[in-house]
Amino acid sequence: MKFSSKIEKCGLSPIRKFHPYAVEAKKKGINIYHLNIGQPDVETPQEYFDAVKRFNDKTVEYAPSPGLPVMVEAVQEYYKKLNVNLESGDILITQGGSEALNFTINCVLDNDDEIIIPEPFYPNYNTLSRLAGATIRPIETTVEDGFKYTYKEKIESLINEHTRAMLITTPGNPTGVLLNHDEMKMLVDIAKEHDLFLIADEAYREFFYEGDSLSTFGEFIDEAPENLIIIDTVSKRFSACGARVGCIISKNRELIAHTLKCAQARLSVATLEQLASAELYNVGPEYFVKVRNEYKKRRDTLCSKLAEIPGVKFDVPKGAFYLVASLPIDDAEKFQQWLLEEFNDNGETVMFAPAGSMYQTPGRGINEVRMAYVLESEKIARAMDILKKAIEVYNNR
Amino acid sequence: MKFSSKIEKCGLSPIRKFHPYAVEAKKKGINIYHLNIGQPDVETPQEYFDAVKRFNDKTVEYAPSPGLPVMVEAVQEYYKKLNVNLESGDILITQGGSEALNFTINCVLDNDDEIIIPEPFYPNYNTLSRLAGATIRPIETTVEDGFKYTYKEKIESLINEHTRAMLITTPGNPTGVLLNHDEMKMLVDIAKEHDLFLIADEAYREFFYEGDSLSTFGEFIDEAPENLIIIDTVSKRFSACGARVGCIISKNRELIAHTLKCAQARLSVATLEQLASAELYNVGPEYFVKVRNEYKKRRDTLCSKLAEIPGVKFDVPKGAFYLVASLPIDDAEKFQQWLLEEFNDNGETVMFAPAGSMYQTPGRGINEVRMAYVLESEKIARAMDILKKAIEVYNNR
Repeated sequence: MKFSSKIEKCGLSPIRKFHPYAVEAKKKGINIYHLNIGQPDVETPQEYFDAVKRFNDKTVEYAPSPGLPVMVEAVQEYYKKLNVNLESGDILITQGGSEALNFTINCVLDNDDEIIIPEPFYPNYNTLSRLAGATIRPIETTVEDGFKYTYKEKIESLINEHTRAMLITTPGNPTGVLLNHDEMKMLVDIAKEHDLFLIADEAYREFFYEGDSLSTFGEFIDEAPENLIIIDTVSKRFSACGARVGCIISKNRELIAHTLKCAQARLSVATLEQLASAELYNVGPEYFVKVRNEYKKRRDTLCSKLAEIPGVKFDVPKGAFYLVASLPIDDAEKFQQWLLEEFNDNGETVMFAPAGSMYQTPGRGINEVRMAYVLESEKIARAMDILKKAIEVYNNR
Repeated sequence: MKFSSKIEKCGLSPIRKFHPYAVEAKKKGINIYHLNIGQPDVETPQEYFDAVKRFNDKTVEYAPSPGLPVMVEAVQEYYKKLNVNLESGDILITQGGSEALNFTINCVLDNDDEIIIPEPFYPNYNTLSRLAGATIRPIETTVEDGFKYTYKEKIESLINEHTRAMLITTPGNPTGVLLNHDEMKMLVDIAKEHDLFLIADEAYREFFYEGDSLSTFGEFIDEAPENLIIIDTVSKRFSACGARVGCIISKNRELIAHTLKCAQARLSVATLEQLASAELYNVGPEYFVKVRNEYKKRRDTLCSKLAEIPGVKFDVPKGAFYLVASLPIDDAEKFQQWLLEEFNDNGETVMFAPAGSMYQTPGRGINEVRMAYVLESEKIARAMDILKKAIEVYNNR
């Protein structure tokens, strides 16, 4: 049977592809430290569970395709506090940030179009772009330069007649790169000058460890109303990844009208999840401060332990909860499989996301991994001890 | 700004596009009988709500991309009772039947490919096919022939080098056409002979009003393991449309592997919704008998009332809960808008889904509507009285 050439070009997620090996390792009684997936261990705020318990409908009905009004209003209120004024028509509720990205890419990218994305990037960007028939044009970066990509001339040299959009993740997944106001402004200017969409994936907005206040492209939404598209989600913000509630935000009403076609084709977002997610927006600022401090502590533990391992290269991430490390090994995918199938230290091993498929440029990132510091500091410290030992054993096989 | 040519070709759902006008009508105090959308008024079984109340996790975590094991097992058990033996690897849990269709179409259809679908069809098939770059090749039918499409020679005459799949909805949405064993067998044979995928959308499987037992293409899954793909959902079966839980079923493991790439790109299906939906499968057969009898009664009311309206043509639907009627009016979209903006009978009006965009063949179905008989019989009777009066007023304006 013949399959679509577009799906043939897609791969399995490097974050999830080693899941079957992990299942096998666990069957053998091995304990795994999961630094492969951005699944925070932080408790979801009680507001979610209270809303769930209060749910009293007799029939679990479809919600309106653009989202339940209560959820739309929660997003509006949240942005108002960031001095970003949105009308309800600027917001479309989606099944997580993933669907927000999917709809946006489907509306914006055509066959043979190009989208500019700094590499390494979140690998699902590649699956979604390929399914739309488009290609990622990467902005190359290096670990030595802290994965910095905000070089105007370099970016403009990548723009051609096929370029339709730039996709920027800040705080960055997988690199933890955090843009400042001037960098954002520069990217907005490029988008305006070249008639490009600027898709800002801000799933990790609250997770910043430098500066006093969070930054968002929302600040520029009235300056570039036709260009800016913000991807948002409750997943990381409220440690509610399994709720699958996110949104698309744009002042470009033509874009929103197109995304509504996609939204209608999947009918609606789960009703109860929207009701409960709307309540999450009632948590106070102290929640974010607490969570931020916890992740900062974890980041610091990770970085100090990593610095002890000979041959490892990394940059201290300034936001999100990921770090890309270059390891002194031949191939991170082989190493990961070996970690799960052949290695353990006192019955324990560790899982990362190999970073090779987070690069578009062939040959880049082969010996790199993304680490998600979503475990308690003591567990991260132990995981790094295991890694140190594993690298030695692996290289002396 | 330039948008994708594929999204430009898509339209708004005829089922949901009049929603803004309905909102305005309601603001004026008008009561609307909603026959436009397949949102059953039947209560969701208590099992769903009990599971929701029991939910005791501290963190709402991602589920595995292919689905929670408990949900996969629930689907397996359900099919076992229908004598369809599935392994867990034959099932991928999705965000409703809509996502199951989306993934399947993305994996199976390429740019310039064709998919054969009887018309009138569920209009989202068109959005999903267009986004994949493909085109629907319709099997034409007529209301006079009861929308029958199972003519082997006619179907084979539509197959060419671009044809990749047939998509069959049984029981049919929007027509209520129900296939018998021989008709299914004939379609399976065509799929095998011509190396086509046969996508069977069986969202309405339990809703049949002829014969003693339900029918499913699952019966043929061992006979055509490479060709058959079944689309399933809890939405209509358990009146849980707002849960957004469905699945793809196939013995074609290469297909399932491709759909997993799509599944990983959206991470997971809502955790709590899967837990609660799995419990729905514990309802006994008496639940389906009761629901079926209720819908049969509604169908009978609808048909007897419709038969009283001069100039209306329809066929008695044998399954699902829809009926396509040809109305003695010029244009069903204009008529629907007029019904919402200018007409009311004692403060009440009625909403249908205009059927024009359920046809691929230009000019077909302009004066047809899809009616969903998802309201109590008395309400359906009243809605038909309103329709009768409205047609008279509309044609005498």
